[in-house]
Amino acid sequence: MKHFRITPIGIIHTPFKRMDECPHQGRERGAEGEVILDERLLPALKNLEGVTHLFLLTFFHLADRHRLQTVTPHGPEIRGTFATRSPHRPNPIGLTVVEILKINGYRLHVRGVDCLDGTPIIDIKPYVTDIDLFPQAVTGWVKKSKNKGRGMPKSILY
Amino acid sequence: MKHFRITPIGIIHTPFKRMDECPHQGRERGAEGEVILDERLLPALKNLEGVTHLFLLTFFHLADRHRLQTVTPHGPEIRGTFATRSPHRPNPIGLTVVEILKINGYRLHVRGVDCLDGTPIIDIKPYVTDIDLFPQAVTGWVKKSKNKGRGMPKSILY
Repeated sequence: MKHFRITPIGIIHTPFKRMDECPHQGRERGAEGEVILDERLLPALKNLEGVTHLFLLTFFHLADRHRLQTVTPHGPEIRGTFATRSPHRPNPIGLTVVEILKINGYRLHVRGVDCLDGTPIIDIKPYVTDIDLFPQAVTGWVKKSKNKGRGMPKSILY
Repeated sequence: MKHFRITPIGIIHTPFKRMDECPHQGRERGAEGEVILDERLLPALKNLEGVTHLFLLTFFHLADRHRLQTVTPHGPEIRGTFATRSPHRPNPIGLTVVEILKINGYRLHVRGVDCLDGTPIIDIKPYVTDIDLFPQAVTGWVKKSKNKGRGMPKSILY
């Protein structure tokens, strides 16, 4: 199949210098970070004031792109990669919702980061409740793992 | 900056053969479609049974990657691309939540599609309410447009 080329639009600075320091999900820790976008993209940031939450699409440049199954923090079972949020996946694109704390030109100060310092950013999109809220969603295997009482924090999931 | 290579993991069949047939957002129309994944990735689909909603990451292969500002269905104003969900963006990755209706091997029958028939799929991730629900999120300029009473359906947004 045809390949596509992704060009980073910026990078993110986070407190996490090593993989084992990264929280499994950003909202679990509430850590702050700074997205530094390519300044040539400044016109694309118009109207971002007033937007409170962003989908941050990152590229996990250190990921293993051949891992089709993986172990998660929910238990010892081996899960299918596409049923998890593991960074190790064929196209290792990260998806994290962050809260915008401050916008300073092409620098966005955000809360809820979970990736390594220096991770490339490949897109940002506003979180829109009309589009993105699905409170009825169920992730079957996660519930099952929880029921087994493995003692994992509720919010942790690769 | 360094580029990254994305290899499609499959394609999606939808009822939409022309761009002007596509709904602005999938949940607005509730149209059904079929994701056909690369069969070599079948092991990665383990545990998808019991998952009700997926983030579908698509690649808008026909998009204009140089459009930094755009007009949306919310009004005549020109908005910054990164404050909108427009498919025309530097890395034209689409993000749509779909409901899984049926899984048949590497074919997923889903509801809530919004892209052209034949659009490449680059990742799928389970929607997890613990991670992905942000009911407090506000998209300032959308509310403002609504207040102007431009008569756009509430759920329409690029």
